[in-house]
Amino acid sequence: MSGVSPFAPRSFPALPPVAGVRLAGAATGLKKVAGAFDLMLADLAPGTAVAGVLTRSRCPSAPVDWCRKILAQGRARGLVVNSGNANAFTGTAGDRTAARTAEAAARLIGARPDEIFVASTGVIGNILPDDAIPLRLPALAAGLSADAWPDAARAIMTTDTFPKGAVRTARIGDAQVTVAGIAKGSGMIAPDMATMLSFVFTDAKIPADVLQAVLRRGADRSFNSITVDSDTSTSDTLLLFATGQAIHPNVTAASSPLLRDFRRAVEEALEDLATQVVKDGEGASKFITIDVTGAASARAARRIGLSIANSPLVKTAVAGEDANWGRIVMAVGKAGEKADRDRLSIAMGGVQITRNGKLLRDYDEAPVAGHLKGRTIDIAVDIGIGRGRARVWTCDLTHDYIAINADYRS
Amino acid sequence: MSGVSPFAPRSFPALPPVAGVRLAGAATGLKKVAGAFDLMLADLAPGTAVAGVLTRSRCPSAPVDWCRKILAQGRARGLVVNSGNANAFTGTAGDRTAARTAEAAARLIGARPDEIFVASTGVIGNILPDDAIPLRLPALAAGLSADAWPDAARAIMTTDTFPKGAVRTARIGDAQVTVAGIAKGSGMIAPDMATMLSFVFTDAKIPADVLQAVLRRGADRSFNSITVDSDTSTSDTLLLFATGQAIHPNVTAASSPLLRDFRRAVEEALEDLATQVVKDGEGASKFITIDVTGAASARAARRIGLSIANSPLVKTAVAGEDANWGRIVMAVGKAGEKADRDRLSIAMGGVQITRNGKLLRDYDEAPVAGHLKGRTIDIAVDIGIGRGRARVWTCDLTHDYIAINADYRS
Repeated sequence: MSGVSPFAPRSFPALPPVAGVRLAGAATGLKKVAGAFDLMLADLAPGTAVAGVLTRSRCPSAPVDWCRKILAQGRARGLVVNSGNANAFTGTAGDRTAARTAEAAARLIGARPDEIFVASTGVIGNILPDDAIPLRLPALAAGLSADAWPDAARAIMTTDTFPKGAVRTARIGDAQVTVAGIAKGSGMIAPDMATMLSFVFTDAKIPADVLQAVLRRGADRSFNSITVDSDTSTSDTLLLFATGQAIHPNVTAASSPLLRDFRRAVEEALEDLATQVVKDGEGASKFITIDVTGAASARAARRIGLSIANSPLVKTAVAGEDANWGRIVMAVGKAGEKADRDRLSIAMGGVQITRNGKLLRDYDEAPVAGHLKGRTIDIAVDIGIGRGRARVWTCDLTHDYIAINADYRS
Repeated sequence: MSGVSPFAPRSFPALPPVAGVRLAGAATGLKKVAGAFDLMLADLAPGTAVAGVLTRSRCPSAPVDWCRKILAQGRARGLVVNSGNANAFTGTAGDRTAARTAEAAARLIGARPDEIFVASTGVIGNILPDDAIPLRLPALAAGLSADAWPDAARAIMTTDTFPKGAVRTARIGDAQVTVAGIAKGSGMIAPDMATMLSFVFTDAKIPADVLQAVLRRGADRSFNSITVDSDTSTSDTLLLFATGQAIHPNVTAASSPLLRDFRRAVEEALEDLATQVVKDGEGASKFITIDVTGAASARAARRIGLSIANSPLVKTAVAGEDANWGRIVMAVGKAGEKADRDRLSIAMGGVQITRNGKLLRDYDEAPVAGHLKGRTIDIAVDIGIGRGRARVWTCDLTHDYIAINADYRS
């Protein structure tokens, strides 16, 4: 429609090798467009632990069902992801394709099928033949390398306008560990050709149950705090792999003080990836950060924030550069969380607009209007009744969103 | 933006007098535009019972708070509604304005202030002076008449492109009673200048608690089953007044068989008014009816229906005349209600597309594409797990919606 997102970085970030991770990504002909990258493979060292957060959709894709089944074991040796076909709403044929794909990758890597994670993103309802990926894997496996991050990031893209990667380092005891990951997504989901996928890798040695606790908290503050269009994919998948190749003191519990810096690194990497997804939101022209404070709890604050972030009326007002704070009052009211009209305070771009339920007597719209002309919009809402706080991110709702989604499939 | 809704009727329906109801509507200068109708008054006979359903917003307007307070008594003598200013987010000043307005109307009518219902719709956050409406009421009251339905319907409009009215008759015993009402609304709410308001009047003699039961059930199947943009107003108000002027056998309980035909008439009138609101939805070019069957319960069916109806991706697909049934799968999945991917059946325009979780082998998209080119779109979803069913209505999401809402206030 309108080419690359205005928020696209000049180039893909430099992601270093992560010990125990080898990657490949290529154009293998799964997508109809010649030269379009569409398949990635990750080979993970023996002993790799895994944690995951999967879509809450009641109609999940076959790969999501597969991952949910094997995730409980906490062990991983490989990851296969294709784009172009979501393998969703494909019945038992879809389950077979996921299983055959895992078996083929397991043979190549020398692992068990239930140690191979799979994900698919693309069109819903088209059968993906069960040999489609197995036939393509050997050539892909031949090209595995420690630095194929850009190829892997590209191979999982659908309507994305730029590949997404992020890296952070952390200290565990005296050792330095790396947290590096990739993501794709361009609506919170456009179920046809979007879906949010993210795969993060670290050389830290963390037991699976501890890893799961770290990921859950990080996901709540990142991927569960973004929205483009309020729609939830059949296929959303976030996986965190820890190869255990780094040498550092043993971590045995999620509460261990050893984990503090690692937790920060994971959360920062997830936030980096999640906000890149919003910045590549379909039709996005503004990146919106919403801070909610003074709510009854952190959970209430996040729900209020997402109610504002999901409101078509708030999003169109920002698209129109209209300082329409009345729509924020409406969105707070409809969130279903405790609020008091006469305590609500709203600011945009750092300029206070209302305090304790009333428009400021000397409110001057000019600086707010100026802020709204920028690319990066800040909305702050204080509910005035408690200490719960949360930050969520979204983008505006523009003519390009309609154009992309009204015209896409046909 | 694009003038009158393509679904606007050629003329306002002929609403007959309802015994015990006198109405007036006029342009009184509350709106800045010269000649714009902006204030209505209803005078109701002594002994009128009232039932109401009010917004669930946690930041309701002052008039909503006023109505909630007096509704418990179940008695009404009058109704005052203004458009142009919502009297919402106006603090204690707003409460005072609502009270002064009720007091002024009560003096004119010869009633108590707590028998006067008030509603306001328009811009949020602007103070409505407490004498603004009282000063204008005497002139309005001088023009009260039994047949001023078109004036009343016009006086409560904001972004509506046509006035909305509906009438049904019913038998209670041997007597014929009338149910007549008006509504306004053009988004499920655009909190700036929309909000859903509806006021329905009947000459039947029904105790307030019974009336409330009839209205609650009717509201669930009408105004609570429509959505334009998923946003909930600070001011949504639905009131049903029964003047008791008709002579028919006494009705003492909601379960009375005497009520069967009356209940049907109320439900039909409410559905008529509610679907008119959807047909006047901001930017609407298609009117969409969604039937959900086979859900775990009626409540689950309605939630699934609203999940489909609220999905920006489904709505943009319909706007684009794209038979994108994958987005319906997604919307069923995200509703949070029990579903089974492998039992889901979907049809559009009466053409079966999927059955038991699979695309029909001989599915031909051509007739579905043809159906989508029409103005009236039917989507049917069978969940395949129970007997719960519901029908909901919505409209498509178009460029005009963005144009109206991105540019409105400024």
